Amino acid sequence: MTDALMLRLEMQALLDDYVSAIDEDQIERWPDFFTEDCLYEIIPKENEDLGLPAPVMRCDNKRMLRDRVVSLRHANIFAPSVYRHFLSGLQIESAGDGTIDLRCNYLVINSNQVGQSLVYQTGRYFDRVVRTPAGWRFARKRAVFDTSRVQTLLAIPI
Amino acid sequence: MTDALMLRLEMQALLDDYVSAIDEDQIERWPDFFTEDCLYEIIPKENEDLGLPAPVMRCDNKRMLRDRVVSLRHANIFAPSVYRHFLSGLQIESAGDGTIDLRCNYLVINSNQVGQSLVYQTGRYFDRVVRTPAGWRFARKRAVFDTSRVQTLLAIPI
Amino acid sequence: MTDALMLRLEMQALLDDYVSAIDEDQIERWPDFFTEDCLYEIIPKENEDLGLPAPVMRCDNKRMLRDRVVSLRHANIFAPSVYRHFLSGLQIESAGDGTIDLRCNYLVINSNQVGQSLVYQTGRYFDRVVRTPAGWRFARKRAVFDTSRVQTLLAIPI
Repeated sequence: MTDALMLRLEMQALLDDYVSAIDEDQIERWPDFFTEDCLYEIIPKENEDLGLPAPVMRCDNKRMLRDRVVSLRHANIFAPSVYRHFLSGLQIESAGDGTIDLRCNYLVINSNQVGQSLVYQTGRYFDRVVRTPAGWRFARKRAVFDTSRVQTLLAIPI
Repeated sequence: MTDALMLRLEMQALLDDYVSAIDEDQIERWPDFFTEDCLYEIIPKENEDLGLPAPVMRCDNKRMLRDRVVSLRHANIFAPSVYRHFLSGLQIESAGDGTIDLRCNYLVINSNQVGQSLVYQTGRYFDRVVRTPAGWRFARKRAVFDTSRVQTLLAIPI
Repeated sequence: MTDALMLRLEMQALLDDYVSAIDEDQIERWPDFFTEDCLYEIIPKENEDLGLPAPVMRCDNKRMLRDRVVSLRHANIFAPSVYRHFLSGLQIESAGDGTIDLRCNYLVINSNQVGQSLVYQTGRYFDRVVRTPAGWRFARKRAVFDTSRVQTLLAIPI
């Protein structure tokens, strides 16, 4: 019991650190939350439910995440806008061998330059987390989003 | 101190499990979060503040919750939309005899088929939680909502 | 490790209590979350990023917070509206000497009398928390908000 609650706290800390890196515009830190051979996907829920996994974004190793950071930094020099993540509904399951599967609702609010704050995306993370010498890392992060209309060209990490 | 913080973690886990069941469309699990002789109410804050408790929905035992699930499953076969709960502001008070009173802000975002994500409802839970052999259960859950205009005909559980 | 997680729980409990006092319209409790010589500021992120700290609100002791509560109670007798805070992305750093620096995303949803619930403000707290004989208190709370257009005349505490 206590072990399960402690694990829960550790997963909350990991997720809070993850979204803080993105929201505080420290996206150079973002790839470091993943293992080298990670999978990162952003998928429309509609597709996921139909068993048609056509992710709008897919990176299957850490180098691709780093490339993405570089292109975001180069592309996104004008029209700055701010993103805030909010998390709830954390569910944790042991997948054996020190591997944890977690699911968690996310909400991202985007505030633009003309002063509007709108729901940018809601969805649910389906993540696999592994313990490494450097701490907990995502071996897999799948962000399955509810909102059909998502701007993905210059999308920030979710 | 430590006991209070552990209880807090257990209540967070209970609430996160509760909203996950709803948001993951596992509403058959929903009645199992309650005791047999539970009270479940959805109430406009305006009424609550005036001492005029006219709930827009009221179930006073678990069988009624199960009936509601059945009718939701039958009614809700078209126009699927997705709901996401977000929780914050958890307050816990012991009500004696292993009974816990908790209060907690909730936010439900609804994403519809044309791609819009909007605030569906905000409010605060006023819950009584009891320890049963099967774990913590809601003896009472009152969702007092802030938003005056709420669609309640085919309302999902809050 | 366990100490860090316990501290994390205590900070969550403090923040949840803080937002509950505001959202449950117990703003008379609000100044008591602060030390006597506290600093409380609400600052646009744009200014903060440019190093031009021009807060839209600034109180540099607890008496000013109490004065603000009095004026809010007198000014705000009509057009009641409801605010709900949601928090995520908690980051904690020890600043030595039992002093804690924390950062945390906040979202405030406002529900007005005609039934609309809208994002009122998003931002991030940059707080300093100290342990006092009466418990944890804010020595400094800076709410840096993302949204450019903020109604501040009769602003509730954030």
